[in-house]
Amino acid sequence: MKVNILLFHDFETLDVFGSVEILGKIEEYELNYVSLGGGLIVSAQGASIMTKKIEPSSSDDILVVPGGRGTRALVNDSVFLEMLIVAVKHSNYCLSICTGSALLAKAGLLNGKCATSNKQAFSWVKSTNTNVKWIQNARWVVDGKYYTSSGVSAGMDMTLGFIRDRFDEQKALHIAKSIEYIWNSDNSKDPFANYE
Amino acid sequence: MKVNILLFHDFETLDVFGSVEILGKIEEYELNYVSLGGGLIVSAQGASIMTKKIEPSSSDDILVVPGGRGTRALVNDSVFLEMLIVAVKHSNYCLSICTGSALLAKAGLLNGKCATSNKQAFSWVKSTNTNVKWIQNARWVVDGKYYTSSGVSAGMDMTLGFIRDRFDEQKALHIAKSIEYIWNSDNSKDPFANYE
Repeated sequence: MKVNILLFHDFETLDVFGSVEILGKIEEYELNYVSLGGGLIVSAQGASIMTKKIEPSSSDDILVVPGGRGTRALVNDSVFLEMLIVAVKHSNYCLSICTGSALLAKAGLLNGKCATSNKQAFSWVKSTNTNVKWIQNARWVVDGKYYTSSGVSAGMDMTLGFIRDRFDEQKALHIAKSIEYIWNSDNSKDPFANYE
Repeated sequence: MKVNILLFHDFETLDVFGSVEILGKIEEYELNYVSLGGGLIVSAQGASIMTKKIEPSSSDDILVVPGGRGTRALVNDSVFLEMLIVAVKHSNYCLSICTGSALLAKAGLLNGKCATSNKQAFSWVKSTNTNVKWIQNARWVVDGKYYTSSGVSAGMDMTLGFIRDRFDEQKALHIAKSIEYIWNSDNSKDPFANYE
């Protein structure tokens, strides 16, 4: 099963690699690092990651969309948003971390759906699309094929929740243990809900 | 202040990027991704990261040493271990995550010092050098310039602990909040101590 991890300049490093660490423990998942144009993509923390040009296909299963300060420009980038729409439509599941949900919202993909995002940037994220049912008090939110998480580290909790939903609780707990991670497994408990 | 993040093939992705996410929030820290020979280095989760060739200098402040399955070969690689000794000697602080401490131990750098490591691999790590005072029940251990953490996610808790020690508790808490991370701030509490 093909997992496409969508990178862009100034993505938040842990948004991606927290989720990747967990998805990488599932043997059936083949991780691909992709971007709009391919080549090296630099994170907000200066890590340069090699990517392939994204080429959505019917074999795609999971799309991972991080957030970070790079999203502030991308919500106004129609070429990026059109690519995102095609990539999401080809995927069975779409996981966004942090302000990655602002990109999905601006592309119109979350219209009428429940979603959450980074709590420090919540007002800005909400302003990108008022037709989304934004949930403030949630570590992560599931609506159909969309899993949206709160800021940065919440992406790890969500990804373990995704594994629980696709497989079972034992598999998620086993992965958490193998990376010595104390999983916050209840998505309704959000200690950062009123951070902004 | 120069932070050198030492990468090698098959390093564990989150060992590096959990710590990087936190260190990257300190304005004074300049993050450098380095390796023995420079060029692209591929993590155990298939992420290709561009690195510069490591060139230890007197301006180095912090060295970050991840773990991962790549360490199993490197403990027998004298060229790598000699480079590691020079890099550590040039640094004011050395932070290892997961089985990164096996590399430090095999290089003889932890002789007579207290240290910890990944709990699933603890027997193997201990076998690399019995002159180290290995601490089983610790999320992380500090001994002089050395900060060694337990497996993968424990590196985030340790790095926040390092920030607390260098600055203050408020700064560490502020960073944890900004990445919506629930910090396990007590290094003596280790829920995975008896995992193996």
